Order: sequence, then C-alpha cells, then structure tokens
Amino acid sequence: MSVNSDRPVILITNDDGISAPGLHNLVEAVSSLGEVVVVAPDKPQSGMGHAITIGMPLRLTKLEHFVNGVEAYHTSGTPVDCVKLAVDKILKRKPDICLSGINHGANHSINVLYSGTMSAAMEASIESIPSVGFSLLDFSVEADFTAAKVYAHKIVKSLLEKDHNDKHFLLNVNIPKVPLDLINGIKICRQAYAKYDEDFDERTDPTGKKYYWLTGEFKNFDEGTDTDVWALEHNYISVVPVQFDLTNYQLKKELEKNWILE
Amino acid sequence: MSVNSDRPVILITNDDGISAPGLHNLVEAVSSLGEVVVVAPDKPQSGMGHAITIGMPLRLTKLEHFVNGVEAYHTSGTPVDCVKLAVDKILKRKPDICLSGINHGANHSINVLYSGTMSAAMEASIESIPSVGFSLLDFSVEADFTAAKVYAHKIVKSLLEKDHNDKHFLLNVNIPKVPLDLINGIKICRQAYAKYDEDFDERTDPTGKKYYWLTGEFKNFDEGTDTDVWALEHNYISVVPVQFDLTNYQLKKELEKNWILE
Repeated sequence: MSVNSDRPVILITNDDGISAPGLHNLVEAVSSLGEVVVVAPDKPQSGMGHAITIGMPLRLTKLEHFVNGVEAYHTSGTPVDCVKLAVDKILKRKPDICLSGINHGANHSINVLYSGTMSAAMEASIESIPSVGFSLLDFSVEADFTAAKVYAHKIVKSLLEKDHNDKHFLLNVNIPKVPLDLINGIKICRQAYAKYDEDFDERTDPTGKKYYWLTGEFKNFDEGTDTDVWALEHNYISVVPVQFDLTNYQLKKELEKNWILE
Repeated sequence: MSVNSDRPVILITNDDGISAPGLHNLVEAVSSLGEVVVVAPDKPQSGMGHAITIGMPLRLTKLEHFVNGVEAYHTSGTPVDCVKLAVDKILKRKPDICLSGINHGANHSINVLYSGTMSAAMEASIESIPSVGFSLLDFSVEADFTAAKVYAHKIVKSLLEKDHNDKHFLLNVNIPKVPLDLINGIKICRQAYAKYDEDFDERTDPTGKKYYWLTGEFKNFDEGTDTDVWALEHNYISVVPVQFDLTNYQLKKELEKNWILE
C-alpha cells in the first residue's frame, strides 16, 4: 500500500465481488473518513461462509481504475481470503478498521453463518481489527443504497471517534429496504432464530439425469422483540454485536455436571 | 431412505469427501448403534466453512457399494449442502442424530469456523438435530483411527441413551494423535483463542505472473487450562459444546449503554 498519512486506514471487502454496486456505495460512503483500500473477490462469492482456499493458490490483481481513485485489488479467493491477503500482502499492517459490504441481500438472523460478507468481517475481528459488515435487504443489482450509505457513514464515523474495550469488536449491520425518511433509527439487537425452510427444486437435464436447485421460504421462529428480524420489520437498522467464540457455556456447565463418561 | 426400523437413524457426513478413510471409520464405529445413512461430498471440501451452493444446481448420486452395506450417497455440494439434501431429499425426515467426520486434521479452537466438518454438524443442529463433529489431529490419509473410533462409539452411545435439554445440541470433538492407551479421557472444554499466524508463499508461474499459497504457523494465544487446545496437548479428547447464536451479549450490553447515535 502506497498511502502514507495519519488518517485511519479503512480496508473494504465484500462477497458480491469487485463489480458490485454495494461495494462502490460503501467506498463512497466512507472515503471522507480515512484512506480506503479495497480488496474484493473477482467474482460473486455469496453463501461462501467462512470458506478459505487451501487446495489451490490465489491470484491478486491491482486495478488501474476504481471509484474515487481508491486503491483497489481483486483476488481469485473467497471473502476471507481477501482479508488475509490484504493484511499480509497489500497493507503489510493491520488496517484501523475493516468494512464488508454493502451486501445485496439480508444477512440477519442465521444468515450470518452463510454470509461471505460477515465471514470476511469476522476474519478481520479474529485478527483484532474492529470490523463491521453491512447488508441491505434488497437482492437487486439496482438496489437503492441511499439510506444504507447515510447510516454506514454515521456508524463508521462513530466507531473511528470512540474507544471501545472489545479487542475483537464486530458488528452485523442490516438496513431495511425503505427510503431514508422512513427509517426509525438504529437498534442494538440479538441474532434471531429465523431461517430458511429449505426445499430442493428437482429437475431433469437433457441426458435424463436429475439435478437439484436449493430453494426455500424464510421463516421467523423467534418471538422476541429484541432481535434483528423484529427491528428490520419495524424499519430500524439492526446492529448485532457478533463474536467468534462459539462455545455454548450453558451446555458446557450442564455436561460438566451430568455427562460423566468414565 | 428404505430403512424401516425402530433403531435410531444416524446421518453421517464429512468434508474430506466420500472416499476418506475417516468417514469409513466413523461408519464402522457407530453402525451397531442404529441405521446409518451416509451423504458426503463427492470430492474433498476442507476449509469450506458454512458455504452453501446457491449459484448452481447440485447432483446427488446413490452408491452401489459402501462400507458395511450402508446406504450411501455423494453430492456435488458442500458439507452443509449434504445435510440439507439428506434431510429434504433422502431421509425425508430428520435423523435422530447427525455425525460429521472423522476429519483428517484438527478442528479445535478457531478452526471450528473454517471447518466443513463442524459446519455440516452445525447445519443439522440449526434444524434441531443433535449433532457431533469428530476430528483427529492427524492430516495423513493413513492416520490411525483406533482411538477415535473407540471414543466416537462411546460418545454417540451415551448421547443416544441420555436425554438432553438443549434442542440444538452440538459438540465439537477432537481426538489427539496418540495411541488409545495414552489417552487420559474426555474433557469438556471451551474454544481456545488459538489460530494460524498466516503468511502467503509468493511464487511466479511459467508466464511470469505471481500467485500465492496460503501457509502459516499455528499459535495458541490462550493461557486457559479449560480450553480444547490445552486438553489436546495433555492427551485428552476435547469436547466443546457449540452454539450458532453468534450474538456478543457483553458487547450488546455495553453498546446499549454507551453508543447512542441519535
């Protein structure tokens, strides 16, 4: 990275790929707040979760032209690979903050697990880089990012100005698909137990062999009013603080008491 | 699925693929405990994390011959896809338990996030199927699964016999690479903060272009004696109860108090 300044270094990545409007909108939203460097996948990587590339090598290419003259690279890897390459091969230092998105489509509730957007942010948080993933509840390429940009700017500005104690600070931010003036504000939430009720669409190829498309209907099984799904349904921006310690401490306590094997 | 019996239905998957010795060893370890059905990827899928296939359709193939005459399928998808296909298209019901592995290589500490083995088990747990991922600390194809098999049988037998309250019951079990008689027993643990300190091996291809291999050194940053890494270093089988609610409740509390944006 060629930048040499006192401004904070903001690493931006995503899972929809280097050409996604959501990425460009995020760059525009925060480029006044620091030195932005973009490292994103060279193709869409939605649903990649926390996948990494271990069976083959990676390519890394610097782009000649990008939004706002920002330094930008694309890689042949997953969103998580992008963060690893950015820290080790491009910045050669930790950025002050890592942002991921703005994703075209929701990453609330259980979707946080499948989301390449959130996994990239989580990878940075593992490396003690404060991180935020942004997602807009609109899958469309022509999605309107106006409200998302306003709130992304607000949230990142606030994070850069304030001290926080959590050294693995990580937020999952989702923005409802409504015009800016209809947004009721920001709500700190927990992750809802809501998920896709899956089915597979069974088809037959021209040679007579079957193949299956994943499909399904999204269902909320969580009646709480403190969840991200509730907040979004009520036109709030949902902010879920996220952690990567997956230990179920409640179950740990129970097993220590009741599950003696020998 | 053609099986019709009162014995528990045990779904088995993995991320090393249908041909991996670890999968065959897991089938052998538990086939006396229920009706086993195997649905595994048709190729290695290590490091796939919680990835799902959304941009292309999936293939599903029934195998003519498998270990112990067990009903077995392979799919073109990820480990998580395997679980979804098994429940929706093969079993057409929820199995009584889902097992994943035995993985060739460790899935302790932060590795739980990258692990296809654990993500498959987690996918089942989201669907309220009690699940266990098993991993042996030996990457080799010729790994000795003797101890892993003994403990896998013990743990699964115990789970099938006992009631447990957690409807998303999920365990991450790792087995040290030592002979059976050197294993000190089972230890219920929390996930260690231990991770790979990554680097990329930079090389040049025959056309002069650079490419990068992910490499790195595993480091433990966690001094706790209650972690999975500690247990494994002391020849215990580590059992970490795992959850998929990633909400950081501590940070949530702090942000609710101190982070007023409007």
